[in-house]
Amino acid sequence: MKTMTRLTLPVLLACSTLVQADMAFEIKDDGTLKRPQGYREWVYVGTPVTPNDMNDGKAPFPEFHAVYIDPESFKHWKRTGKYREGTILVKELVSVGSKLAVSGKGYFMGDFIGLEATIKSAKHFPNEPGNWAYFSFTDAENGMLKATANAFPTAACNACHQASAQTDWVFTQFYPVLRASQAVGHDGTVGR
Amino acid sequence: MKTMTRLTLPVLLACSTLVQADMAFEIKDDGTLKRPQGYREWVYVGTPVTPNDMNDGKAPFPEFHAVYIDPESFKHWKRTGKYREGTILVKELVSVGSKLAVSGKGYFMGDFIGLEATIKSAKHFPNEPGNWAYFSFTDAENGMLKATANAFPTAACNACHQASAQTDWVFTQFYPVLRASQAVGHDGTVGR
Repeated sequence: MKTMTRLTLPVLLACSTLVQADMAFEIKDDGTLKRPQGYREWVYVGTPVTPNDMNDGKAPFPEFHAVYIDPESFKHWKRTGKYREGTILVKELVSVGSKLAVSGKGYFMGDFIGLEATIKSAKHFPNEPGNWAYFSFTDAENGMLKATANAFPTAACNACHQASAQTDWVFTQFYPVLRASQAVGHDGTVGR
Repeated sequence: MKTMTRLTLPVLLACSTLVQADMAFEIKDDGTLKRPQGYREWVYVGTPVTPNDMNDGKAPFPEFHAVYIDPESFKHWKRTGKYREGTILVKELVSVGSKLAVSGKGYFMGDFIGLEATIKSAKHFPNEPGNWAYFSFTDAENGMLKATANAFPTAACNACHQASAQTDWVFTQFYPVLRASQAVGHDGTVGR
């Protein structure tokens, strides 16, 4: 039985670590959010494009916005149709690189120019509407991303999300991967 | 030693299965490609948009093209900067759903309307340029995706890819995730 005990302890420790790693973000003791890592291998949900040339040269979100959800929260979304405690969505901003290619006229991606994130957490943001807080790591002056970010004041982002977002403060209406997979138990691929 | 033998055999079988599962596609005995599964959880690389209203109502690829690479081939790309034997890229076609949102004027994704794929394989396509073959699962009449697809004749797709694609017949120039991660050993996130 002594042998059993020695084997069991590491297994229990490993499980404890897994539960903590379940969240795809880290909020520091000072309340700032560390810049998410590895998000380009999360689940992509959709890309609006609001080009500067369609917005008098000053798009509020220039220009492509590639949006991702962390994989564990996507699993929960497929099963329940809800954003779980600890959901993080990342929005990577990409410039328009060109408007013409062999495939036709349009908008084609250029360079990465910014990174934003939103997190739903009653634990961390008990007073935010829907428990969603919003962050930006964009540093236009230095062209690099910031290492940490503070949450925006509630009014800065929430007003538009509250008024116009379809599902729990998220603009699900523009993210077809989320629309197709909401509570259906799979990724929503047509004909699956 | 008899006990060791019994334990080893299942382990060897499991490894053999893993090697086969390394490829994210299945080509049937009749040469057709089965429609890929699970690609919305692969690695997203970029989204051109060639809207019908910028192409006289007849975009060759209507309208958003969300492009993914299978995760094992992305690992190889990050490490070597090359598309490995068995790379598959999937292009999911999405309609334009709207052109105005609270975030500005632009193009916003509507519904899934088609699916295409390209595979690099010297084993399966020894005579294709670069060993790339191209497939479409789009079935505009039925609005569903086809279960299988034959490779297009070489001239149908390869001419544009050969003339204009940046890297090994792939339009890497329009996929910032691939550009940023080519042979750098990580996902290319700025400041990482």
